[in-house]
Amino acid sequence: MQIIESGIRDVEQGENIRVVMPVNIYECKLGDDVFIGPFVEIQKGCVIGRRTKIQSHTFICGNVTLGDDCFIGHGVTFANDLFKNGGPDSSAENWIHIVLGNSVTVGSGATILAAEICNGAVIGAGSVVTKPVLLKGIYAGNPAKLLRLL
Amino acid sequence: MQIIESGIRDVEQGENIRVVMPVNIYECKLGDDVFIGPFVEIQKGCVIGRRTKIQSHTFICGNVTLGDDCFIGHGVTFANDLFKNGGPDSSAENWIHIVLGNSVTVGSGATILAAEICNGAVIGAGSVVTKPVLLKGIYAGNPAKLLRLL
Amino acid sequence: MQIIESGIRDVEQGENIRVVMPVNIYECKLGDDVFIGPFVEIQKGCVIGRRTKIQSHTFICGNVTLGDDCFIGHGVTFANDLFKNGGPDSSAENWIHIVLGNSVTVGSGATILAAEICNGAVIGAGSVVTKPVLLKGIYAGNPAKLLRLL
Repeated sequence: MQIIESGIRDVEQGENIRVVMPVNIYECKLGDDVFIGPFVEIQKGCVIGRRTKIQSHTFICGNVTLGDDCFIGHGVTFANDLFKNGGPDSSAENWIHIVLGNSVTVGSGATILAAEICNGAVIGAGSVVTKPVLLKGIYAGNPAKLLRLL
Repeated sequence: MQIIESGIRDVEQGENIRVVMPVNIYECKLGDDVFIGPFVEIQKGCVIGRRTKIQSHTFICGNVTLGDDCFIGHGVTFANDLFKNGGPDSSAENWIHIVLGNSVTVGSGATILAAEICNGAVIGAGSVVTKPVLLKGIYAGNPAKLLRLL
Repeated sequence: MQIIESGIRDVEQGENIRVVMPVNIYECKLGDDVFIGPFVEIQKGCVIGRRTKIQSHTFICGNVTLGDDCFIGHGVTFANDLFKNGGPDSSAENWIHIVLGNSVTVGSGATILAAEICNGAVIGAGSVVTKPVLLKGIYAGNPAKLLRLL
């Protein structure tokens, strides 16, 4: 059995970042004043904007971009392989690249399966976002639907 | 980068408590015979009743009170900031205080966004509880609805 | 307070297994070429088939059997006590034994509450599976429903 230690590896860092261990964060970029809670994994190619907070138990898959001043709750899951061909796609070029704008709020326990969430949008806790969110508003449910514009 | 170690800090403890590491538990109170599984976070101000079990991967936000003999499954998330103004509210006095009675059961993967769950209620796995649960019964779904009284 | 260290204990191992720490895995069997991400718990009596991948934050309860070549996403939760009598059942003989066939895909954030998922089935991210999946197809939602056959 090959034991691989989690940790913080090959991360391009801004200033004044705080991280609560244990985490598994590698080959990504963290902006100034980012906070990351315990039991978080952030995979390679991610870019996390300034002052964005990522709470405990959250998983951020490869190549996700989060803007500045985002709040990502606890136990949030991002997925970029949508199984379009009926299962995991080994060709990463078929995966979506998820981009969240600035000041996006994602409630705890939500699942993000969409390529875009616009500036200022709010995703309710426990929601499953299956389509791009292009209008600033509050979205909730499985699948997530617009509750009201902001 | 400031590295903060998780762990057990400033906890008022009853007798015969068992905890599986790693966890992040701080400034809270654990009653006699409590069990806490691995990868759990419990924030400040929480009070956990006697014989209550909190399974792996669960997140309990600040100021949650759990009664005696509760069973909290794996990967359960509690949230007290309901984003009423369209995003995280920096004024903690606007957050709800979540209180679960005695012998409450919360299934794995559930999300709790309500201020009260009464004695003996059962929340199904994967449910999202958005309203207070005032009648002893079984609730499930997103949002959680009453399936039957107990 | 009794502190219990998580880790890898009493595991029957195939060859070429990779595990990212920290994990809590005990009294189970892992086939050749299995991958297990960080923050995973696998309980006693589980059997994980060859080349199956279990991603970060997933919880696999006791006595689950996964076939070969399965993909289990991040933050997936399995539960075998269905609270049929209105709460946790202390008699393990009343719990279901969950069996997944070969090449089953379970999306991130899903909750599995069913005794069987057949070969080749795909469960969408964030779904809650409450009934056995007997036909090869794509299933999603809470509760999960068949979207289309494969």
